[in-house]
Amino acid sequence: MTQLTEGSYSTPVPDGWDIMGNANGGFLLARVAHAMCVESHRNDPVSITMHYLAPAPASDDYVTDVEVVKAGRTLSTVTASLRLSDTQIARAIGSFGDVDARREPIHVTMSPPDIPPIDRCAPRGEKSAMVPALQSRLNTYLHPDDIGFATGNPPGVARMRGWLEFADGTPMPTVGLLLAADAFPPTLFNLMGMQGWVPTVELTVHVRAQPAPGPVQCEFTTHLVQGGMLEEDGQIWDSAGTCVALSRQIALAPRIN
Amino acid sequence: MTQLTEGSYSTPVPDGWDIMGNANGGFLLARVAHAMCVESHRNDPVSITMHYLAPAPASDDYVTDVEVVKAGRTLSTVTASLRLSDTQIARAIGSFGDVDARREPIHVTMSPPDIPPIDRCAPRGEKSAMVPALQSRLNTYLHPDDIGFATGNPPGVARMRGWLEFADGTPMPTVGLLLAADAFPPTLFNLMGMQGWVPTVELTVHVRAQPAPGPVQCEFTTHLVQGGMLEEDGQIWDSAGTCVALSRQIALAPRIN
Repeated sequence: MTQLTEGSYSTPVPDGWDIMGNANGGFLLARVAHAMCVESHRNDPVSITMHYLAPAPASDDYVTDVEVVKAGRTLSTVTASLRLSDTQIARAIGSFGDVDARREPIHVTMSPPDIPPIDRCAPRGEKSAMVPALQSRLNTYLHPDDIGFATGNPPGVARMRGWLEFADGTPMPTVGLLLAADAFPPTLFNLMGMQGWVPTVELTVHVRAQPAPGPVQCEFTTHLVQGGMLEEDGQIWDSAGTCVALSRQIALAPRIN
Repeated sequence: MTQLTEGSYSTPVPDGWDIMGNANGGFLLARVAHAMCVESHRNDPVSITMHYLAPAPASDDYVTDVEVVKAGRTLSTVTASLRLSDTQIARAIGSFGDVDARREPIHVTMSPPDIPPIDRCAPRGEKSAMVPALQSRLNTYLHPDDIGFATGNPPGVARMRGWLEFADGTPMPTVGLLLAADAFPPTLFNLMGMQGWVPTVELTVHVRAQPAPGPVQCEFTTHLVQGGMLEEDGQIWDSAGTCVALSRQIALAPRIN
């Protein structure tokens, strides 16, 4: 990513971060957030929201236009627009600052997801028609109870749990958590099978701590499929057992008879 | 609210929607969302996010500048900026459409909050130093287990539950749910007492159904106070037992020794 002009950043979307030819929404969020961090001179997204307008095939020609709306003492509020030539691809808004690694939690009533150790989970890295290209960049290990969708035996629970790390060993930065928030198969697959595309309308991620080294463990659940929409709530915990991000997206449900 | 020029709307913030002199964040979100609905010719906010930049005292001189980024078939993506003269007050982005009242839920694994009937709840309408002016516009009835904060006996659970309706009998429109999402006392008050201000950084609301007539029932919980920040998750259900909105905000935690 290079700065083109004041507030504009080249944002290449390479092959391999896609699902069926279009870049993963979490990947786009992470790339745009990186530009927003650079422009605002802040280290971390604290809260960021993206609305998705059009599919994003691989191209070197994407541009992110960033505006720092307010530079406050603790946080800066930043907006961004991702475009490919004149086509609007996504819009984002976020508050950026320093996610404090030192201050101890003072209230926690959540627990890390109940996932077996990685060596007892199902790696999702193999090439197959059912595995998106995205998985060549990430090592994902699914909870053995949550892989039924892939074999036509969905467990009937709208949940997806597993471990995730970068395939090339890169440590997980806070912007990487934005990718992790959208890198698992849709929860809906485990409710009713792979019924079709579940396009994200909007994704919001709160980064709550710096991740410790090692893979992150994730749990995504859906409580409400209603009016043609569904939400997907995510928790991302680091290997040390700290909740490092909360996410929520709203997506279009496939039309089901 | 009147249109001033193409895309700009007068957005008066009257007295009585404030907490300690500054307008409630949910009220600002509802007002801005209304302008976004008008400009985009859509009926309902489906997903909307606001970031708060500066306090908003009552004034007739607020202006909302709205841009329809994309008008799609099902949804329109819209951004907005609320300002008072040259001072940026808040920025919003949302996807707007028609929240479908007819399509039956196909998956629900949530239940309405466990709140007694209104006549067994604690009305919060009385004037007192501890009751914000906002409450003169709204009838709020708190769960009897969740009122300890007001008497210096917080129950130690970061939760706030109750019923809410407009004091003047206005039915609850979908934009009204945006106000409801931020109209209860902070959950933190019931965890550790009224320790101070809990300023909202960002608030996102998903509207999931048209509310049936009557008051709405709300539950807000906080699971994580960490790194100086806390989230507040909200569920809003209508009187007929349908979940009509999910909300989440991130706020600055008061400094506590």
